Amino acid sequence: MRAVRMTAPGVLEQTEVPVPTAGPGEVLLRVGAVGACHSDLHILDAPAGMFPTPMTLGHEVAGTVDQVGAGVSGWSPGDRTAVYGIIGCGHCRACLRGLEDQCRVVPVGGVGLSRDGGLAEYVVVPASRLLHVGDLDLSQAAPLTDAGLTPYHAIELARPRLRPGTTCVVIGIGGLGHMAVQILVATTAVRIIAVDTSVAALDLASRLGAHEVVRAGPDAVEQIRTLVGPPPDGADVVLDFVGADPTLTTARQVVATGGQLLLVGLAGGTLPVRPVADEPPTVPLETSVVVPFWGTRAELQEVIALGRAGQLHADVQTFPLDRASEAYEALRRGEIHGRAVIMP
Amino acid sequence: MRAVRMTAPGVLEQTEVPVPTAGPGEVLLRVGAVGACHSDLHILDAPAGMFPTPMTLGHEVAGTVDQVGAGVSGWSPGDRTAVYGIIGCGHCRACLRGLEDQCRVVPVGGVGLSRDGGLAEYVVVPASRLLHVGDLDLSQAAPLTDAGLTPYHAIELARPRLRPGTTCVVIGIGGLGHMAVQILVATTAVRIIAVDTSVAALDLASRLGAHEVVRAGPDAVEQIRTLVGPPPDGADVVLDFVGADPTLTTARQVVATGGQLLLVGLAGGTLPVRPVADEPPTVPLETSVVVPFWGTRAELQEVIALGRAGQLHADVQTFPLDRASEAYEALRRGEIHGRAVIMP
Amino acid sequence: MRAVRMTAPGVLEQTEVPVPTAGPGEVLLRVGAVGACHSDLHILDAPAGMFPTPMTLGHEVAGTVDQVGAGVSGWSPGDRTAVYGIIGCGHCRACLRGLEDQCRVVPVGGVGLSRDGGLAEYVVVPASRLLHVGDLDLSQAAPLTDAGLTPYHAIELARPRLRPGTTCVVIGIGGLGHMAVQILVATTAVRIIAVDTSVAALDLASRLGAHEVVRAGPDAVEQIRTLVGPPPDGADVVLDFVGADPTLTTARQVVATGGQLLLVGLAGGTLPVRPVADEPPTVPLETSVVVPFWGTRAELQEVIALGRAGQLHADVQTFPLDRASEAYEALRRGEIHGRAVIMP
Amino acid sequence: MRAVRMTAPGVLEQTEVPVPTAGPGEVLLRVGAVGACHSDLHILDAPAGMFPTPMTLGHEVAGTVDQVGAGVSGWSPGDRTAVYGIIGCGHCRACLRGLEDQCRVVPVGGVGLSRDGGLAEYVVVPASRLLHVGDLDLSQAAPLTDAGLTPYHAIELARPRLRPGTTCVVIGIGGLGHMAVQILVATTAVRIIAVDTSVAALDLASRLGAHEVVRAGPDAVEQIRTLVGPPPDGADVVLDFVGADPTLTTARQVVATGGQLLLVGLAGGTLPVRPVADEPPTVPLETSVVVPFWGTRAELQEVIALGRAGQLHADVQTFPLDRASEAYEALRRGEIHGRAVIMP
Repeated sequence: MRAVRMTAPGVLEQTEVPVPTAGPGEVLLRVGAVGACHSDLHILDAPAGMFPTPMTLGHEVAGTVDQVGAGVSGWSPGDRTAVYGIIGCGHCRACLRGLEDQCRVVPVGGVGLSRDGGLAEYVVVPASRLLHVGDLDLSQAAPLTDAGLTPYHAIELARPRLRPGTTCVVIGIGGLGHMAVQILVATTAVRIIAVDTSVAALDLASRLGAHEVVRAGPDAVEQIRTLVGPPPDGADVVLDFVGADPTLTTARQVVATGGQLLLVGLAGGTLPVRPVADEPPTVPLETSVVVPFWGTRAELQEVIALGRAGQLHADVQTFPLDRASEAYEALRRGEIHGRAVIMP
Repeated sequence: MRAVRMTAPGVLEQTEVPVPTAGPGEVLLRVGAVGACHSDLHILDAPAGMFPTPMTLGHEVAGTVDQVGAGVSGWSPGDRTAVYGIIGCGHCRACLRGLEDQCRVVPVGGVGLSRDGGLAEYVVVPASRLLHVGDLDLSQAAPLTDAGLTPYHAIELARPRLRPGTTCVVIGIGGLGHMAVQILVATTAVRIIAVDTSVAALDLASRLGAHEVVRAGPDAVEQIRTLVGPPPDGADVVLDFVGADPTLTTARQVVATGGQLLLVGLAGGTLPVRPVADEPPTVPLETSVVVPFWGTRAELQEVIALGRAGQLHADVQTFPLDRASEAYEALRRGEIHGRAVIMP
Repeated sequence: MRAVRMTAPGVLEQTEVPVPTAGPGEVLLRVGAVGACHSDLHILDAPAGMFPTPMTLGHEVAGTVDQVGAGVSGWSPGDRTAVYGIIGCGHCRACLRGLEDQCRVVPVGGVGLSRDGGLAEYVVVPASRLLHVGDLDLSQAAPLTDAGLTPYHAIELARPRLRPGTTCVVIGIGGLGHMAVQILVATTAVRIIAVDTSVAALDLASRLGAHEVVRAGPDAVEQIRTLVGPPPDGADVVLDFVGADPTLTTARQVVATGGQLLLVGLAGGTLPVRPVADEPPTVPLETSVVVPFWGTRAELQEVIALGRAGQLHADVQTFPLDRASEAYEALRRGEIHGRAVIMP
Repeated sequence: MRAVRMTAPGVLEQTEVPVPTAGPGEVLLRVGAVGACHSDLHILDAPAGMFPTPMTLGHEVAGTVDQVGAGVSGWSPGDRTAVYGIIGCGHCRACLRGLEDQCRVVPVGGVGLSRDGGLAEYVVVPASRLLHVGDLDLSQAAPLTDAGLTPYHAIELARPRLRPGTTCVVIGIGGLGHMAVQILVATTAVRIIAVDTSVAALDLASRLGAHEVVRAGPDAVEQIRTLVGPPPDGADVVLDFVGADPTLTTARQVVATGGQLLLVGLAGGTLPVRPVADEPPTVPLETSVVVPFWGTRAELQEVIALGRAGQLHADVQTFPLDRASEAYEALRRGEIHGRAVIMP
């Protein structure tokens, strides 16, 4: 079968490989759709040794069960599924609670991360990674597994604060941010302030239900402060889907005392947390700062429920498998609107 | 009556002032004991305008009800009380939940912070700030209101993670840290690792129930890692009661993925939170970073319950009111062991 | 001024009384609107001694600040407010957490319950009971304080279970139930199944956003089971706003293992909880049963936020003060649709 | 090998069966110890069809890994383990969160419940059911999996209420109750009131750390009320390990408004929950009533941590495998003190 593989650090190739077989506890999926994610570019760019080679990429996968391995129950050929990408150790205190995103043994393990992923005609995954998607389009199901799950998980971490009368600032209305706005609209009565450099992105945010939009730039903090009031008040929650120094600065300057900063974007900025008595703190007192990672299997089940109920929809741009490299190049150049999804 | 007042920024004076009167909703206390806190030094050192002058210092107060103002119910002369020092606005979303430490209107308001404190023979406080202490010694009750409450609150924030089989690292076994060890012993079955530069402090930690002690220094991270295992595992919770650059570095290098860092000490270090994909993060993924502030009235009630049950005891060094300046000088020189308590 | 008072057990009279004065910590309100509640009938019917007489009724109150007592800050004449009706002791472990509905000292204390209520031209309340309502119509603000707050509080207790993909059954789409449907729509993505004996009530539920409606009766359990699946699955949460034996039976027969039953209605039925090993349990294992009571001040603030945002609207039928008795008679005969609101 | 099997409803026989083989995802254990549980008697007494026959009994199992099936990682021959007895579906919303005790698909599934249990020389279990026990004695590890886990889980459900200054009443200081007292002592600073009909049981409770003991009987409610104060105050949490009508009545008469009743014992009493306005409620308002079931795998990991730390110890009475019937007969006659553990 055809597969898009990282054959050496930095090298992405379309190759021919044998169709794999489902071992005990595993399932062979016929791949229906695979999201192309910025993380794939990070994997390609990573130093030798961090990820195995050769390895088929693709960790946002949806497909149809083709073959069921020994000892697997609950799945039959033809079942339409989404793949939960993380594979934790299964034994540690985090995994036992279903928090495989916090596994204490495996740093970053998963489909397309530590074993062959979905950018191929077929992929083998542990049966425990599968979730039913019903009649949801597979090109939608695939991006929900990461572009949907990651903001959902960040919002879950903040949920106790997302109450009627509170405010959530969403910075960066791209592939993840436009999902975040929809998730907030569907599951909370919070006031949403969307922030982006692009007018088109802010228009999208408004259409999806954001109550206020603010153009990123030198006046952004002041504009947001007009909406949320002066310190120690402020935004109850800030979701930063960019993570560069300017967005981190905006985030910490508008969050309320006792609020929450969720730094989802990985653009490499640094947020300084400076506990000090005799000057204003860099981050308000009692405010929680977290860099969340992907999400849990139980959360993915809920993301799929939102998708099936029509409350969460990914903007996707589809590519056939033999144009996967092209999709990644467009992604690297920032030319993908919404999510690139490859359909083998 | 005699009172120890900040008469101008940086100036502490013992003066004679009239005995105040309890207004509506207030109570006049005969002061029994007042803790001398590092925060008082910060107040003295703060730039002009940050705090009112003249103002009687003292925000760790215990005393006996002397006179009850109009409209006050539930308190009678002779009642023995501790004073919850924070005075929030009472109306905001935080105050309505009893989280006055996160008040969205008043930045730092309270007895000895924005109005006269307890370093005097008498003090007037809002009746709502009082908590019964029963027959607890007032020289114990006073330090519980801050040196006891602050670590208790930090531990409360971390409590969901403080489960049997987990590890909590306590950095700095001084006035607050030695309370933290006792609170952990009394209310959890967590393994406690105490860290300090001083052998005497580590001995105290062991006597109070710490399971492991580690001398601060270049080998500390490695020693703690031997106890908690390699990343992504680590300490579930780290309480830093120092807050200098070296302790913050130790803290972030030993905490687990999905753990919690509570930066209680205000020594002015900076913890960099850097969300980035292609190198190890400065703080593990999914780990919450918080700079907590003091605590809540409900938590203080529980701290007093621990004190009354004999499960929480402050090491105190007492001074008469006319030697208050001496106590603060000793505090500034780091010569106070445990907590300095002034007994008017 | 005119006031509608219970002058003796069972006796409701319109009388003339002096305008009261705000004492220390209190505020005098000019009453704008007062909801007439079934609880008022329970108060009238209660045995002598349970409630003080004479007492002005009315615990669902909205009005305008007229006079401010000594020691009150934060309120000025002209402020438009809703009144949080419960008055707890203010000192117990529940009150310190803002859970005055669980006060450990005062069984049922409040405006119109243990002191004069709002069925008059003016009412005096503790300033701490007031919440700003902005430009919300006072005839809306009044019913939000009980008919809005009670279902909101019940939903809050169940909120951890109200996740995308779960189901909430709402039994009784009357004064409280029609608010519950709106609150669920505004703050969750849960599937809502409305149950009532009346087709008109079910039509209302559908218009407000219920996803499924089921006519109460002998087939109701079977119909709901078709929607939620067989045991141990079922509805994640059931809100019973009736509380009669038939509705309690329906509730316990459709709830899931690990679900939650909230018995809000007080129609006097009995739910038997029978822990037993050798036959099916009357209530599924791991399912929480609670009889909630009213709500908290912080929750009322959020209910008002929903009202101001246009996401929660009470159907009201207004009466002038001199027709208050008529309103209660209609209420007793079950002839009020939505909420009767008296406008002094 | 020898096995103690239910060969027909009500019939317990010692038979010879082949040593089973570990299939894919499974592990063969050499059984070290098996607790004899009252639930086994319920299984024996259950009507035909509720449980499969023939079936080897024994759901409290500890043993040593002997053989590892295909696709199993993380376990090797010689590993000393405890068995988490519940086997949920693995796919439902409860199982995905690690709450297999609330599985929405399998009513009561598990080792010794729906497949062969541990009362044999060897047993096959899914590898995912195993937890490391280190050097903990297997005769201790076995009872921890149910007699330890069940009270731990009930306490977990109540944990948010188990704070310094609160009170927990433990009714029934037998096999589970004496574990509950130890768990409360180790993990909380709550005041413990133990209730039992037996003076010896109360003496045991005192030795284990209960602060107060009350003899069950007509005066018990009054004695507990003297300790916890009058309604609406009371015990914050009541754990009833008996579940007969008299204990349920005591439980509901001493619990506080806003408290929690955990009905663990299955003696067949009925607790009436009666929401009503004009008379005192049978259960206080805002009080949660739950019949908990066993516990979760993550909780068992913590129970084992307590056992290994010496903070939780089961009183056990050991029997060889060929005297298993004798153990059950003694259990039925109420002649077992602590826990009967069978050592194959």
